[in-house]
Amino acid sequence: MKHKALIIIDMQNDFVLPNAPQCVDGALNIIPNVEKILAYFREHSFPIFHVYREYRANGSDIEKTRLDDFLNHQKYCVPNTHGCEIIDELTPMDGEYRVVKNRFSGFMNTELDFILKRLNIQNIVICGVQYPNCIRATVFDGVALDYDVTLITDATGAKTEEIAKANIVDMKNIGVSCINTNAYIGKKK
Amino acid sequence: MKHKALIIIDMQNDFVLPNAPQCVDGALNIIPNVEKILAYFREHSFPIFHVYREYRANGSDIEKTRLDDFLNHQKYCVPNTHGCEIIDELTPMDGEYRVVKNRFSGFMNTELDFILKRLNIQNIVICGVQYPNCIRATVFDGVALDYDVTLITDATGAKTEEIAKANIVDMKNIGVSCINTNAYIGKKK
Repeated sequence: MKHKALIIIDMQNDFVLPNAPQCVDGALNIIPNVEKILAYFREHSFPIFHVYREYRANGSDIEKTRLDDFLNHQKYCVPNTHGCEIIDELTPMDGEYRVVKNRFSGFMNTELDFILKRLNIQNIVICGVQYPNCIRATVFDGVALDYDVTLITDATGAKTEEIAKANIVDMKNIGVSCINTNAYIGKKK
Repeated sequence: MKHKALIIIDMQNDFVLPNAPQCVDGALNIIPNVEKILAYFREHSFPIFHVYREYRANGSDIEKTRLDDFLNHQKYCVPNTHGCEIIDELTPMDGEYRVVKNRFSGFMNTELDFILKRLNIQNIVICGVQYPNCIRATVFDGVALDYDVTLITDATGAKTEEIAKANIVDMKNIGVSCINTNAYIGKKK
């Protein structure tokens, strides 16, 4: 069996909670499926990565396109704030990895690839928010870096179903395995 | 005047204190010069970056060549240990940047370049430990990334004078300004 790891992306209060400053439509309703996948990986003692955003309060490390809004309207994902924390339902347990990113891809200028390689992970299983941005960027980098990539379609959120579908088409077309939660868990049992 | 920033590398208890697990010969005696440079940058309110190592206790993010010793002999730079902390003389102040790295270069898979670009920094001034490894790797990446790079020769440590000299020759040869502490501070006043 290939070594696999779970990567849960950006499931933080600032992105998930209703009325959060950067609430992603479609984040709230994937929680039960992300919980199922997380429970499956915990049960099998496969490595788990919580990959999430942090931005320094002065905006020095946020994407340029978000900078003006961040500085002049509302800040988010600032370390040591409640909004920055991973949602209660998915709180990392001891032994699970936390990797902080500042850009869309979980691989960009982070230690994610270092650790995955050291652990001999070949297959990465991705879920979280949101389809067109952080999910897709991480998926594409994962393929480019030679991982087998699996996307859990109904444990991944998008603003609309159309956006989700269009992104799934593109990801399937580069060889990503796109599968829903129950099929993944059933298949692997 | 060009925008400049100071980058102090790996001045942590585990590398600097006598009898530290990874004590770098030549680290202790540069402290007064690093303090002078740091005071100069603080006085002029130029950005300051403390770039330093952290390794997860299970060794999942340490260089391969260090892994066996780390796991089986002695751990170092593990977050939330005294050894991982920056030495007392150089404790970061509010508003100064902390950037964690897992490899030799301060740029490799870190947010350092993101922030320097955002701050419009053109000239990076580098000191710390040690010449052939983290200093040199950061200097070479800095040049490669289009920064003007200044190395403070006597605020940078090496195991021997010969190693320091040989590295300075190589760095000068790629266009790095190598200058001692008093000359730098005097020149800039």
